[in-house]
Amino acid sequence: MDIDLVTIGTELLLGFTVDTNSAFAGRTLAEVGVRIARRTSIRDTPEEIRTAVGDALVRSRFVITTGGLGPTRDDVTKKVVADLFGAPLEFQDAIWEELTAKWARIGRKIPDSNRCQAEVPRGAMVLPNPRGTAPGLWLSGPLGEVVMLPGVPSEMRGLLVDQVVPRLAARSGGRAIVSRVLRTTAIPESTLATRLAQVEDSLDPLTLAYLPGLEGVDLRLTAWDMAPADAEPLLRSAAERIREIVGVNGYGEGDDDLAAVLLDRLRAKRWKLAVAESCTGGMVGQRLTDIPGSSEVFLGGVIAYHDNVKVRQLGVSPLTIERRGAVSEETVREMAAGVAAATGAEAAVAVTGIAGPGGGSDAKPVGTVWFGFSVAGRVEAERLGLPGTRADIRGRAAQYALFGIHRRLG
Amino acid sequence: MDIDLVTIGTELLLGFTVDTNSAFAGRTLAEVGVRIARRTSIRDTPEEIRTAVGDALVRSRFVITTGGLGPTRDDVTKKVVADLFGAPLEFQDAIWEELTAKWARIGRKIPDSNRCQAEVPRGAMVLPNPRGTAPGLWLSGPLGEVVMLPGVPSEMRGLLVDQVVPRLAARSGGRAIVSRVLRTTAIPESTLATRLAQVEDSLDPLTLAYLPGLEGVDLRLTAWDMAPADAEPLLRSAAERIREIVGVNGYGEGDDDLAAVLLDRLRAKRWKLAVAESCTGGMVGQRLTDIPGSSEVFLGGVIAYHDNVKVRQLGVSPLTIERRGAVSEETVREMAAGVAAATGAEAAVAVTGIAGPGGGSDAKPVGTVWFGFSVAGRVEAERLGLPGTRADIRGRAAQYALFGIHRRLG
Repeated sequence: MDIDLVTIGTELLLGFTVDTNSAFAGRTLAEVGVRIARRTSIRDTPEEIRTAVGDALVRSRFVITTGGLGPTRDDVTKKVVADLFGAPLEFQDAIWEELTAKWARIGRKIPDSNRCQAEVPRGAMVLPNPRGTAPGLWLSGPLGEVVMLPGVPSEMRGLLVDQVVPRLAARSGGRAIVSRVLRTTAIPESTLATRLAQVEDSLDPLTLAYLPGLEGVDLRLTAWDMAPADAEPLLRSAAERIREIVGVNGYGEGDDDLAAVLLDRLRAKRWKLAVAESCTGGMVGQRLTDIPGSSEVFLGGVIAYHDNVKVRQLGVSPLTIERRGAVSEETVREMAAGVAAATGAEAAVAVTGIAGPGGGSDAKPVGTVWFGFSVAGRVEAERLGLPGTRADIRGRAAQYALFGIHRRLG
Repeated sequence: MDIDLVTIGTELLLGFTVDTNSAFAGRTLAEVGVRIARRTSIRDTPEEIRTAVGDALVRSRFVITTGGLGPTRDDVTKKVVADLFGAPLEFQDAIWEELTAKWARIGRKIPDSNRCQAEVPRGAMVLPNPRGTAPGLWLSGPLGEVVMLPGVPSEMRGLLVDQVVPRLAARSGGRAIVSRVLRTTAIPESTLATRLAQVEDSLDPLTLAYLPGLEGVDLRLTAWDMAPADAEPLLRSAAERIREIVGVNGYGEGDDDLAAVLLDRLRAKRWKLAVAESCTGGMVGQRLTDIPGSSEVFLGGVIAYHDNVKVRQLGVSPLTIERRGAVSEETVREMAAGVAAATGAEAAVAVTGIAGPGGGSDAKPVGTVWFGFSVAGRVEAERLGLPGTRADIRGRAAQYALFGIHRRLG
């Protein structure tokens, strides 16, 4: 089932508020096989609302609106939609008494300006809204159906989950949009696409989407409008084929964080992890300590931003830095070995590079990053040239630091 | 000037990604008096793109699209829009050579699958995209104008600011929505509101908005639809009055980052800064090293996550940890003094706390964080109880660590 979503509110268009309701609605509705075919965000003027909701009804015959149900002057959604359906607004004492009670409970007398919130288009179903004052409204007619929800996130989400989704689920006949996401890192989108070309055609009826991000490319397999029981085995076997092709670069699924995956693998080996960070300046540690329970595995380490800290805290030889430079294979090797020795960790990673915008040279341009990996006493180094801004380079470097250990655990 | 924004990508509708580009576009365009009259989010199918962009052109005659310019199969925006304008796609060697060079710079050979990114609709203006591969495109014709931008946030934003906004500003006739943002931290929204009540009425015609976030509350003053020359003095004097009331908690304006403000103040004193992080696990270092040029001031420090690291790397006494606990005034004082001594920094901050979800107790509930500030040899400690999730607590703690030094510089 395809529907239209119309979000009403000038602040959304001005960008003063980020629209998180839409993403929530998309995810929640997909789980019951309902797809948002189009989302339209408009100003809260009667003309805009009339055209947008009217067009959406023609397109999908089922429209969910958010916003414009409050008591203030610019809250006109209900009136406009009622007009569209030729349904007069009727004052309902029951709703008014409930509103009065709600206000009384917080020790206030309800202003008459709120009376309009007790008005309901004739024939509309009232969706109780315990989280707020304005109830949701479900209006059906020859044009189709319009479900009006408040714009306040907690109220909109509550009504969607409690009142809208169950009713739509009943219609979807158990069909849903089921997805499975494979997470990859340290492999470019185009390389993935080339490698996966061999399977892409065989995936039908599943679709494969490439979602590139700073930490890597996510691959989302989706089964559209199927019974979950039928979709699962298709997704599973497709995921297996893809994982085989992607190999070690495919580190997880869904929301898996490489830091969490790595911590779990180290925990299983009863190993400890330490870091020595120069250009990432604490980012690798932050990624690891974002994960609850990381303290069982992650010991900590040294933010060796200044060369003196590399020397004093990590035992890097001043001669090495003088002869090879702070961004060099020799230095990163001594950093990794040094932090492993200082902390007694079985696994350690060191990062030193040029994040920019300044500090680059022909020999070592901005984006040059050296990684040192100490695993069970064996130290290896890798050099990468990372693209993008300072933030991009640092983010990619932190991710690769985690990946380098992950790969070496075999 | 009113325009239409069309965001293209099935991701957005499924809710797998939250649409932050739209808010950025809304804010950025408002600054030059350009308003997004309507935003339409659609799937990346040729039919949907054709209808949505077509309708938008009829409505506004000026359309910005985001997404669908990548190298993969589902990137079809350029082709569809070119068709709408009856402009054939032409392969441009110059663009291809640039793409090839970009890939070469990061030591890779560009795959032929990217050749489509060098195709340009005849007559389109090419908008160089240093942050990514696909350039933006600006196509004009009898239907109106369509500006095609990539969906990747950093690329979309860069092109909008560098290529689109300047050209639109020239058309806006000088009226704009002008805002000025004051950044505050370590002071609750309600306290701010009480203190600012005295000035709020006198701000007219400016509006004041409270924007609470993890790092503090931003105060946005806005002049609506005025000539910037008229708005500026109003905003300036209002900002001055508010800064006076807010005091030291108001650390900056606009996009000022407390880390950058702090680094500048330390640089002016020729002081160095070091950190000793337990529960923040590298976040403070990351905040500081996010700032270009931070290496002149920030030495680095120790991620003292495990107690052994507190002892070995910072010289915290095992007895202190045993008697008072790792989260205590005594421990945080020894951490701050220890990292200052080890690095020779004039300013140092130490953080130790319980970020949760586990590890809390009645005496030290989750959210308990101790801060140690060493400034010119004088060590002080503060205890806070921070609300929210693990991520909230860590984010607030990192911000307060920076603020504690900022405040002590007098």
